[in-house]
Amino acid sequence: MNIDFTNVDLTGLDSYKDKSLDAFKTLIEKTGEGSDFLGWIDRPVDLDMQEYERIKKASKKIQTNSDVLVTIGIGGSYLGTKAIDYAMAGYFRRENGTQLVYAGHQLSGEYLYDLLDFLKEKEFSVNVISKSGTTTEPAIAFRFLKEMAEEKYGKEEAKNRIFVTTDRQKGALKDLATKEGYETFVVPDDIGGRFSVISAVGLLPLCVAGVDIDKFVDGFKNGRKKYTINSFEENDAIKYAAIRNMLYENGKDIEVLVNYEPKLKYISEWWKQLFAESEGKDGKGLFPVSVNNTTDLHSLGQMIQDGKRNIFETVLKVQKPDKDITIKEDSDNLDGLNYLAGRDLSYVNEKAMEGTILAHIKGNVPNILLTIDDVSEESLGELLYFFEVVVGVSGYMLGVNPFNQPGVEEYKTQMFKLLGKPGY
Amino acid sequence: MNIDFTNVDLTGLDSYKDKSLDAFKTLIEKTGEGSDFLGWIDRPVDLDMQEYERIKKASKKIQTNSDVLVTIGIGGSYLGTKAIDYAMAGYFRRENGTQLVYAGHQLSGEYLYDLLDFLKEKEFSVNVISKSGTTTEPAIAFRFLKEMAEEKYGKEEAKNRIFVTTDRQKGALKDLATKEGYETFVVPDDIGGRFSVISAVGLLPLCVAGVDIDKFVDGFKNGRKKYTINSFEENDAIKYAAIRNMLYENGKDIEVLVNYEPKLKYISEWWKQLFAESEGKDGKGLFPVSVNNTTDLHSLGQMIQDGKRNIFETVLKVQKPDKDITIKEDSDNLDGLNYLAGRDLSYVNEKAMEGTILAHIKGNVPNILLTIDDVSEESLGELLYFFEVVVGVSGYMLGVNPFNQPGVEEYKTQMFKLLGKPGY
Repeated sequence: MNIDFTNVDLTGLDSYKDKSLDAFKTLIEKTGEGSDFLGWIDRPVDLDMQEYERIKKASKKIQTNSDVLVTIGIGGSYLGTKAIDYAMAGYFRRENGTQLVYAGHQLSGEYLYDLLDFLKEKEFSVNVISKSGTTTEPAIAFRFLKEMAEEKYGKEEAKNRIFVTTDRQKGALKDLATKEGYETFVVPDDIGGRFSVISAVGLLPLCVAGVDIDKFVDGFKNGRKKYTINSFEENDAIKYAAIRNMLYENGKDIEVLVNYEPKLKYISEWWKQLFAESEGKDGKGLFPVSVNNTTDLHSLGQMIQDGKRNIFETVLKVQKPDKDITIKEDSDNLDGLNYLAGRDLSYVNEKAMEGTILAHIKGNVPNILLTIDDVSEESLGELLYFFEVVVGVSGYMLGVNPFNQPGVEEYKTQMFKLLGKPGY
Repeated sequence: MNIDFTNVDLTGLDSYKDKSLDAFKTLIEKTGEGSDFLGWIDRPVDLDMQEYERIKKASKKIQTNSDVLVTIGIGGSYLGTKAIDYAMAGYFRRENGTQLVYAGHQLSGEYLYDLLDFLKEKEFSVNVISKSGTTTEPAIAFRFLKEMAEEKYGKEEAKNRIFVTTDRQKGALKDLATKEGYETFVVPDDIGGRFSVISAVGLLPLCVAGVDIDKFVDGFKNGRKKYTINSFEENDAIKYAAIRNMLYENGKDIEVLVNYEPKLKYISEWWKQLFAESEGKDGKGLFPVSVNNTTDLHSLGQMIQDGKRNIFETVLKVQKPDKDITIKEDSDNLDGLNYLAGRDLSYVNEKAMEGTILAHIKGNVPNILLTIDDVSEESLGELLYFFEVVVGVSGYMLGVNPFNQPGVEEYKTQMFKLLGKPGY
């Protein structure tokens, strides 16, 4: 993985250097606000290996007896898993292997109705993921899924098919798991939801879906080696955080994360949560937007090219595509495409990316190019760790606590009042 | 359908009234820039009924002989169809009926490779949609799909399975269709891509997918009745356009379209193209962002609640859900949800929406509430027409030509140079 800042005007960056190194020090030495939630920094080399082996064992069991694992969670208990699963599954998923299906990530009655109907013909297990067990969306979904599993399999067999990822010691879901005898996994105390894909939160469902979690963890380890170095010149996470803050102070309000391989689109959704929840507070923060190209060149493209100049882009390039296809000569050439004959489609896609970067630079959109080797577990693990360090440094530079999310409570409070929840 | 502006501070709106009425007049009387592309205004009552009957006939044929219709197009030749198809298909699509699968909407080699592999086991037809026939993405995809259809079915039968939607008279695709004898449908001269779902561009694939296009057109007709009235008080499209411009001039740079029924998410993608391409020019324009709730309350929610105050929201509410599910009493109540027993999930979802609106108003995010009766062809047709009028009025108020997209050419020019296309 490497990152190229040559298409950003770096005049003035020097004055952000010390501030970014200070922020990095605050992060690594755990001396800033939110320092109770920095377990993710060393977790790649500090996993609970006993639990890790239980994850693999449970996954094998689920793969053997289930067509579908219903993964119940919202926010950080959903987006990391979805991001990696979607990227690794490819575009036209085959029916072999155990498929992840999500629930508890919204409140659509129609979705849940259709899900229960869909499950009638499937063998399934359930992984409910919630630290407290009382978050409304997953709690409701789990009520329905637990009931369905018990009706379909009987109460005893249902216990073999329900896996609970929750607080180590306390809470509604922990109590329920103890009472029913479900196998449990831990949502760590020292890692916030949006950083939790490296814990059982992400590792269990991903392992079930066939993701090589050893390699995924290796990617995080590689990231930790590269992005915990205390050096502005050698640690691109620090430099990137500095540049983002410089651009923000220079009037850029929107950061667009761009990909040219749409199976990365949920990586962008994960990234949106990571940056929006970490930085969007105290009336501040770059608004994170994702773009999936070339599709969106025919949608948001016009706005990025010619609209209000409050945008910069971070382009995610994949060096080596998983599969490719070669354009052939056509004797009639009525479509005029013969000039591309013999070219791989990935070559055309890359030129579209390069052309778009040139066009956007011309349109005064600062462009950062982030290249990953391939869409593999290792590359994605490293990428996620990189973004996590960036957001920690960047949030401290912005002057906010990057590890809380007080604004998420406000809608809940208002909702609970309207719903007549006891105590509200 | 109705729209509620009570949660926006309308102080100062009066000074936008005349300007919005002038812009509306320019639109309806076709006296402004881009007036050659206003065919969409009257098209709902002025369809080519001969072609409309051919659309239905071709759809029946495709439904009879094909599991899959590969719909090849990008931008306006993709997003309208995808938006309606995705909303009407529901969450867990059954295998009965002919399924739309998209191609030519990006340049991923892996996607096209996997699509061709997926089609091996399917009976399929192809609808290629491109005015010129030389737009790179769909042209490349069509080369592969044409070859595959001819290999699978033979050249003669392939002609019965390839349907071309293109310019009435000229262009590479028209020439190819004439030469090969494909049935053709028309991309109108007087309707731009992002307004073209009311033409064969959208109607043919949607009809194949089982959408009731009569009702969809009826929705557009209802929209035309309501939103072509020359009155600030009676025509909410004019008022909405005025309010958007007022908010923009008051420092709101981002409009967030919010839904609570995630099957509407491609309606938001269609809306993003409509607004970004129409308004994002000359260094101006509100940046359109979409949010699918309650999922994104645990992602962008923090930023919207507490981040930089440059945001306003338009919330899309569905009055009547298609399906619903009732929360039951649980004797243990360990999850504490019994206070919701007897409630439908749609009720909880609605309270989440109302609570979020209250929270965001408290957070100084102006909120507009747009309610549609249901997710039906008629309601969606009316909604699309409404947005089309809004963007026309709003773009003229902003002082841009809402009906061109000059910025989309820049990346193409740069890309063609890099690809060595003759003439570049």
